[in-house]
Amino acid sequence: MSNEARAFVPGHITGFFSTHPDDDPTKAGSRGAGLTLTDGVTVTVSPASEGTVVLEGEPVDLEPVRTVVSTLAIEGRARIEIESDLPLGSGFGVSGAATLGTALAANRAFDRTLSENELVTIAHGAEVQAGTGLGDVVAQARGGIPIRLEPGAPGHNLLDGIPARARVEYVTFGELSTEDVLSGETEVLTEAGTKALSLVVQEPTLASFIYASRGFAREAGLLTEPVGQAISDVSDAGGQASMAMLGQTVFALGTGLTDAGYEPSVCGTHPAGAMLE
Amino acid sequence: MSNEARAFVPGHITGFFSTHPDDDPTKAGSRGAGLTLTDGVTVTVSPASEGTVVLEGEPVDLEPVRTVVSTLAIEGRARIEIESDLPLGSGFGVSGAATLGTALAANRAFDRTLSENELVTIAHGAEVQAGTGLGDVVAQARGGIPIRLEPGAPGHNLLDGIPARARVEYVTFGELSTEDVLSGETEVLTEAGTKALSLVVQEPTLASFIYASRGFAREAGLLTEPVGQAISDVSDAGGQASMAMLGQTVFALGTGLTDAGYEPSVCGTHPAGAMLE
Repeated sequence: MSNEARAFVPGHITGFFSTHPDDDPTKAGSRGAGLTLTDGVTVTVSPASEGTVVLEGEPVDLEPVRTVVSTLAIEGRARIEIESDLPLGSGFGVSGAATLGTALAANRAFDRTLSENELVTIAHGAEVQAGTGLGDVVAQARGGIPIRLEPGAPGHNLLDGIPARARVEYVTFGELSTEDVLSGETEVLTEAGTKALSLVVQEPTLASFIYASRGFAREAGLLTEPVGQAISDVSDAGGQASMAMLGQTVFALGTGLTDAGYEPSVCGTHPAGAMLE
Repeated sequence: MSNEARAFVPGHITGFFSTHPDDDPTKAGSRGAGLTLTDGVTVTVSPASEGTVVLEGEPVDLEPVRTVVSTLAIEGRARIEIESDLPLGSGFGVSGAATLGTALAANRAFDRTLSENELVTIAHGAEVQAGTGLGDVVAQARGGIPIRLEPGAPGHNLLDGIPARARVEYVTFGELSTEDVLSGETEVLTEAGTKALSLVVQEPTLASFIYASRGFAREAGLLTEPVGQAISDVSDAGGQASMAMLGQTVFALGTGLTDAGYEPSVCGTHPAGAMLE
């Protein structure tokens, strides 16, 4: 009946956001803006005699992936292999990518005949319920440089984009738990995120995106010492950088981090959203 | 101040549609579904001392492109070069692609700082007003295999997609004027289009898309003799084909036309929407 299927989902760096809780996970989410990346996550789903999820060959338990497996009614009979160009827990939306990639590939491997919006909705809801992300999935389904004007799954949300492409550099100094930050006090964060969004809506360019992101990182009080230092170093070298939300990761446009003497990973903005291979 | 900028816009074959007129061109449009194509249109915009639009090196007058030039206030000072993998007037959305590509590239070349939704809205409105298309632009901005659930520009419309990729073959037997068909009696067409859409919404797969498209082509009474013959020939050879709306073009999935003894052009569905290069 069914075959192996594979999906690629771009990574996603959020520059700034505000949270929008709702009892209905398809309406809950975040506003904000970010960069989707050519570095991302590949998920391969194949029918198997027992259910397994492996990340880089190691068994892993990812709650939102488990939710998708259960929603698509393939428990105990799918092997899900996740390969990631990007580290987990560092602000690249790896959790969202693994979840959306599982939905797309499983739909195909098991002939589930769901639409793209339905699959994105399932993956978004699974992330929201797990507390692992609020806006990555819808951004990753879209691609480019998404502006999340209204929160939630397709049909509820409203997305726009900055019409640009860029080389992106990044360095990671460690993890930061999305769950911990999102379950804490988010009032200051939401105020800073709302201000940043209005700047980018007024002028949807890369320059205003990174400016607004830097202001958000400062005001939200999430900067750790090495992250703040790297952002300053890039500024001193004449470049533009900010912090990936939520991770101890600094990203820069162009050659910002290289020019500041770092040895960053290099990728680009991804012109497309998640796709079957 | 400004540099040359270039955008690629995928071609778009509409399988079926229903028309939705509105006095507001951002609300007018069509419902339906189609395939975006790896064959498409590249538009290069550069500042110049006089305004020119050339298609494959020959001066050309395309009304919706003219509207975009005027909306972006670059009359008389932009050179717009359009190169197309696909013929004009044959159901590939070349007009929409040229229009959207002009908007994206001109926004960048002339630092207009509009968002993607704003550029898509300008291009969609220009096509609607010219009568050259109703749904190509929003489909081409999205990419993939778009289902147009609600008509109009971004913010008004609702899009979904069939999560699949396919090899696409096509042959063209001549032109068909979109303006003539759309300015005629569209009641039968709209009824057939509504029925086709409900089939694809129920089962968003390539198989149901091509089945619904074939039903639409038959019921809408738009089949010309060579088009009807080629669709039959593909069916007889065990394949799946239908007619590109609106053109005397037959498209098939996989190797449908080759298997039926035709010598088709070959491309694939395009996983991404329009993009700057």
